[in-house]
Parts: sequence; structure tokens; C-alpha cells
Amino acid sequence: MHPASDVQLLLFDVFGTVVDWRASVAREVEALGLGLDGAAFADAWRRRYLPSMQAVREGQRPWVNLDGLHRENLEAVLERFGVANRLDEAALEDLNLAWHRLEAWPDAAAGLQRLRARFVVSTLSNGNTALLVNLSKHAGLSWDAVLCAETFQAYKPDPKAYRSAVELFGLQPHQAMLCAAHAADLRAAAACGLRTAYVDRPLEWGPDRRGDIPASSDRFDMESRDLRDLAAQLGC
Amino acid sequence: MHPASDVQLLLFDVFGTVVDWRASVAREVEALGLGLDGAAFADAWRRRYLPSMQAVREGQRPWVNLDGLHRENLEAVLERFGVANRLDEAALEDLNLAWHRLEAWPDAAAGLQRLRARFVVSTLSNGNTALLVNLSKHAGLSWDAVLCAETFQAYKPDPKAYRSAVELFGLQPHQAMLCAAHAADLRAAAACGLRTAYVDRPLEWGPDRRGDIPASSDRFDMESRDLRDLAAQLGC
Repeated sequence: MHPASDVQLLLFDVFGTVVDWRASVAREVEALGLGLDGAAFADAWRRRYLPSMQAVREGQRPWVNLDGLHRENLEAVLERFGVANRLDEAALEDLNLAWHRLEAWPDAAAGLQRLRARFVVSTLSNGNTALLVNLSKHAGLSWDAVLCAETFQAYKPDPKAYRSAVELFGLQPHQAMLCAAHAADLRAAAACGLRTAYVDRPLEWGPDRRGDIPASSDRFDMESRDLRDLAAQLGC
Repeated sequence: MHPASDVQLLLFDVFGTVVDWRASVAREVEALGLGLDGAAFADAWRRRYLPSMQAVREGQRPWVNLDGLHRENLEAVLERFGVANRLDEAALEDLNLAWHRLEAWPDAAAGLQRLRARFVVSTLSNGNTALLVNLSKHAGLSWDAVLCAETFQAYKPDPKAYRSAVELFGLQPHQAMLCAAHAADLRAAAACGLRTAYVDRPLEWGPDRRGDIPASSDRFDMESRDLRDLAAQLGC
């Protein structure tokens, strides 16, 4: 029996799995003309992502959506790169929205389209609704639903995020599959009873550093090279 | 200046405005082979919709999504039509999901597609997420986002539903427009500061009864014959 034979709902991680945040953000940073190393800036901005969400997840502060966390983190990184006073408020806000204009990996739009013919395909991202909707329009991605941390006020890997998404569709956990390029996300979904599909994205952190590498003990229901490969394996 | 010149977000009512609930439900009821008048049954089922939501809206009972309300109302209508014991649990549940399989009005899919080229186009329906996603897949409708009463735990015309949808996109109310075939829905949106587009659906309640007719005092920002006409008026 196919490991995904009961699955009706595919939930997709977005940053890194569907879109290439690093190259997109780096390009916008370099276009500012401040002489910044765009990739290094993007990496530094992104490295603040996990700890900033963790503070919300652990209840150290009330809910803040990802646009809000990105903005705080942006100001900290500009400071660290020594250009804190070089951008006015409008430029800061526009740079913060670089995350609304990320480009998709080349296989993503076609892969998702094929998967939608057979499955309900939704985001399950830590991005907020407006970010995901704008990004999807920009990158030509289409979804059956746009669910995210903001929908449930719970950042992954909080079990509430995975469970709430499955419940919203009236499904059992084993009828949903999380598709992600990150082992930690997949492990958390598996712990909630969801199926898991690993998507290999070796270039997420650039050509010099390997993307997320699963541990030898990780067992996912499926492993795929990209979304076209995932669609083919699922018979779409 | 065009009345919608600031508008970035179109929020659509769904039942009646985008899909023909009456003909679709009637067809499924008649297919049961119980000798029921499908259209009369659909009307009776639908007439319980407003009062059942009102009990939730007024806090007389905790949150129940529309699938849940539809199921309660279905059992009451089957009783009234004298066929309460003719369907087993599986048949009851399947009939309840007739609302997940509604057909769209003939102009809807093409009209929405055109509107999405220029606007963020989302549902803002009292239907629940699973219902709207299944219905959209069934009817070939595509959205940028699927927002609904369930997202905000607030049934329209509760102001919370309109305001929460606008806030989720980080917009001001006048940057969003509700598109609906029902004057009461549009009036409630206008009271929250949203723009309004009336969509004429004279056949919503069948050929013998006129659909929702605005009062002579109603002033909407736009009036349209269908979604293709709305798209044309908006330059899409």
C-alpha cells in the first residue's frame, strides 16, 4: 500500500520548501545600494527567525505575526551591519515586505498545480496570511487554502498548529501529510500523527552550505527531490 | 474617480452570490428517491440558516460551524417532511455534504479569475473552511485566500467578521470591498467602512421568487449583473 494512500490533505511548509527566501531577500538588500553583502544579510535576518518565534511560542510575549517579528529582526540586523540610520521609515517598511515578494523554486508552481488535481493543497507556514497571499500572487502559486501560524495563533512546531489545520478539514491526522524541507517541522508533524514528505532543498542556505539534513534516525513516509518529483510519486 | 480606486481586496459572499445553492441541493434531495420536492426541501433547509446562526452570534450557544448547523437543520427539515427515519447515518452525513458540492453560477469561475489578475480575491462566507475549500474544488473556483466565519468565530453580519478580514491583510476598511447578492450583508460591511458591490442574482430563490432586492434607500458603491460584469466594470 502506498504510504500516502489515505491522505486527502497536503500541508506545505513555505519558506525554503516552496520559495527561495535567501536569493530573493539577498537581491532586494543589494538593490538598496548600501554596499551590503545581500546573502550574508539575508542569512543574518533569517537566523533571528527561530528565536523570535520561540519567545511567542513560549508565552514570553503576546502574539506577534511574522511581519512584526521580521520588522524587529530587520532593525537588529541593520544595526549589526552598521547601517541602522541609512533607511527612512518607508524604505524600512518596503524592505520588510521583501518577504512578500519571494520567488518560488522553479519546480514549485507546476508541482503544486499537479498535486491540486488530486489533493486539497494548503500552506501551513509560520508566515502570516497577508505575507503568504502576496507572495503566492507574486510567485504564481495557487492553493486550495492559505493556513498559517496566524490562523491558529500558534507557531510551528507547536502541536496546536498541525492539529488545528487537520481539524479544520474534519480529518484524522493520518489523512494529512506535511511536506517540508526541514526535519524538525516533519518530526513535530509526525508526533501529531500526520504523514510526512521530506522535500530536498540543498540550496536553501546557498551553494556553500548544505540545506537541512535529516538525522540518520529520521523516518519520513516519503522523500522527494522537489515538488514535481513529489507529484510524480503521488501519481499526479 | 472610480468608486473602487483604492480597493486592493475583494471579499466575496459565496452562497447565492457565487454558487447556486438552491438548484444544487434540490438535485441531491431528489436523487435520494424519497419522492421529496427538492426545491421546497432546499428552501426549507436554507430558511433555518439565519436563525441558527443568530443563536451562535448572540452567544446563546458556543461556536458551531456551518456543517454542524446544517446537520441540525437537516434533521429538523427531514422530520417536517415526514421522512425522518428514512436515511441512515451515512446517508444523512452525505446529504449534509451536499453544501460542499454546490455548483457555481455560470459566470463565476471566469469572473473571479479575471478579478484575481488585479485584486486579492478572498471568500468572506458564513460557510466553514472545509465546506468552502471542497465546494471551490468541485465548482472550479480559485481564490487567493479562503476566509470565513470559522476563521474569526464570527458569523456575518457580526462586524467582527468584516473587520477581522480587513485587518488580516493589514488594510484600511476602504481598501476592501464586499461583493454580495444580499443587501443586509452589504449594509453591515458598509457600516464597518468597507466598499460595497451588489451582485444581482434574481434566480437565487428560484424562478418564481425574486432574489434579494435592495431597499430604495440602499446606496452601494457598485452594482453589477454578475461577476463578469463586475470584472468589466473594474477594468479587469
